[in-house]
Amino acid sequence: MNTSILTPEEWFSQPRVIAGIMTGTSLDAIDSALVEFSAESDGNHRFKLLESKAFPYDFNLKQGILDLISKPTTIRDVTKIHYELSYAYSNAVKELMKLTGLKEIDAVSIHGQTVWHEPGTSPDRRMTFQLGGVSALAQLLNTRVVGNFREADTALGGQGAPLVPIFDYEFFATGTDDIIAINIGGMSNLTLLPANCTLDNVKAFDSGPGNVLVDTAMRVLYNRAYDESGAVATTGEIIPALLDMLKSIEFIYQEPPKSTGRETFGIELIHTILDKFAQTHLARDIITTLSYFTAWAIAHNIKLFGKANSEIIVSGGGSHNKYIISTLLSLLPESKIIISDDIGIPADAKEGICFAYLAYRTLGGMTSNIPSVTGASRECILGLVAYP
Amino acid sequence: MNTSILTPEEWFSQPRVIAGIMTGTSLDAIDSALVEFSAESDGNHRFKLLESKAFPYDFNLKQGILDLISKPTTIRDVTKIHYELSYAYSNAVKELMKLTGLKEIDAVSIHGQTVWHEPGTSPDRRMTFQLGGVSALAQLLNTRVVGNFREADTALGGQGAPLVPIFDYEFFATGTDDIIAINIGGMSNLTLLPANCTLDNVKAFDSGPGNVLVDTAMRVLYNRAYDESGAVATTGEIIPALLDMLKSIEFIYQEPPKSTGRETFGIELIHTILDKFAQTHLARDIITTLSYFTAWAIAHNIKLFGKANSEIIVSGGGSHNKYIISTLLSLLPESKIIISDDIGIPADAKEGICFAYLAYRTLGGMTSNIPSVTGASRECILGLVAYP
Repeated sequence: MNTSILTPEEWFSQPRVIAGIMTGTSLDAIDSALVEFSAESDGNHRFKLLESKAFPYDFNLKQGILDLISKPTTIRDVTKIHYELSYAYSNAVKELMKLTGLKEIDAVSIHGQTVWHEPGTSPDRRMTFQLGGVSALAQLLNTRVVGNFREADTALGGQGAPLVPIFDYEFFATGTDDIIAINIGGMSNLTLLPANCTLDNVKAFDSGPGNVLVDTAMRVLYNRAYDESGAVATTGEIIPALLDMLKSIEFIYQEPPKSTGRETFGIELIHTILDKFAQTHLARDIITTLSYFTAWAIAHNIKLFGKANSEIIVSGGGSHNKYIISTLLSLLPESKIIISDDIGIPADAKEGICFAYLAYRTLGGMTSNIPSVTGASRECILGLVAYP
Repeated sequence: MNTSILTPEEWFSQPRVIAGIMTGTSLDAIDSALVEFSAESDGNHRFKLLESKAFPYDFNLKQGILDLISKPTTIRDVTKIHYELSYAYSNAVKELMKLTGLKEIDAVSIHGQTVWHEPGTSPDRRMTFQLGGVSALAQLLNTRVVGNFREADTALGGQGAPLVPIFDYEFFATGTDDIIAINIGGMSNLTLLPANCTLDNVKAFDSGPGNVLVDTAMRVLYNRAYDESGAVATTGEIIPALLDMLKSIEFIYQEPPKSTGRETFGIELIHTILDKFAQTHLARDIITTLSYFTAWAIAHNIKLFGKANSEIIVSGGGSHNKYIISTLLSLLPESKIIISDDIGIPADAKEGICFAYLAYRTLGGMTSNIPSVTGASRECILGLVAYP
């Protein structure tokens, strides 16, 4: 009898090593993290990051994904990319295991590649679609695999996002301090964890842009992927008219729950800005203003919807941008800002760790969506499980 | 603690009621079956069909599926159909439960809608893709759901098909008789179960056309979906030149494992036949010849690769065609032919029952692919499991 199916009690009876594989909509890398989780006798979970690594996305695969997102394609091409992702994920897990010398792990968790996400205007119109074969991967790696975490929540009328807050709640919330977890990725995602909070009063939402505006402008103006450490921003000056224009974007002031994307903060906005300011202002001043606005939008959302004297844990690529972090500090002088790297969570690994944790919960029969955050009608076990 | 995750021992410790939902490539119906399975102390499984029903496919959904199979579509449309299938499957299960008065069932099994299947020319080029949200369905119905059974086998170099033979093996094989299970659907699928066979010597393959040639010709010549009970075929006569032409198709004589489809036996072949014979012969004689050939191809494959004195269990729509069954009897006079309806398996329900059984095995941690049949490198647990 195959014993890869365990009861929750068996699953939690010993530490479990899970590889978490994250591929975001930016298509910049296959982020991976190898994490050991354990359930303490007090019911709390602990984690230990064993290894993390970002693997480059194969150029042809990336192009294929961009094509199928942007224009009509054949279902054969969709199928082909679904399989190619499975092989890419399989290789990433194998490399990661090689780095640690581990020959066996308990499970693999994949976010999958989102090729469509439409939160929709009403609960019965929510849709999300991730490619990458959960079932194929379980056979390729001969281990349990969990994936497609977002669909279950959408079927219950939720937005299928954000899913990271359960991780923030479990590992960051305290009985005594107000905590805010911020991930500055493409967009900036905030999780507000008031002191002594329960799941019901966790708030999580997008405050506005993460790195997307600065990165897009850096590509156009400097032909560079991003502003390393905020070096360019530090040398420039704020353009008041541009800052005023950015501050007038309505999304910043909307009540949570709310989420945003490249439709609002993307290449079109950058083109509008450059048309208006590039002829009359220095490139570095534009970068400085965009960087300042990114931090300001986060700080303003904290002031509007959270507490300005919170302990703030920052992860994501943006946590390495010194200009953004020092701007946050100056706008929130009462807060304490902690970079997630400094507490053992490398900025790029956080989402991999989070999705590994979601699989840890799913295989233990635990729910992971937070209805007050996603809008779902109830909590549910997330994801699809494949056994070898 | 949620208890929807059970160990194999717990799963098999009591009878389980599973709804099996089959939607084939013909898109003619959502076939459903509600089945109770139990594991006897001797290790054998038993099943009892509680209810079965074919639900019509919604016209727009069917058209959408045909569109995405036949021409480039946006990934949004793919996602939309994925969700619409989930809702259609959910409604089918609810209707089925209403028919029996059951308020709770143990699991749902969906084949999903195959939108691409490419067995490929080498083991690393196999692909299959089914739509219909396993995870969404688990939440919509608040029960365990298993689906996407084919992908695992393809990841191990198998063709992902056929998967029905494990059902035939478990429920039809005997220690004393040579058994052949035939499903006359679009194509004709044969499972050869020699007396006292083990999994290693099960053979399963397509013999050639099932109903596809007769149905296609009936549509063109009579504007009817099929030849009910073989009524038209019974009135006509065989056209020797046409029969010779059909008998010359190479596929019939190929060594198993082999599978075929509408590329070989489809509308193109019918057009070729009608161009050549429709002006000079009666429509009914063409139907008679196609029906005869369908039975002859089955019988000839049995003579080539099985035993002519077997017990033959016939299921699928073709089992209701009296002309085909009587032709089979006349070509295989030493055999005993049993119509699956007569042993409690309605012809249209067999695949639903089979896929319900695959879920029964998966949730019990049992493997279901037969490597000698699919070409996979090893046995594995099939499918994706979602918990509510």
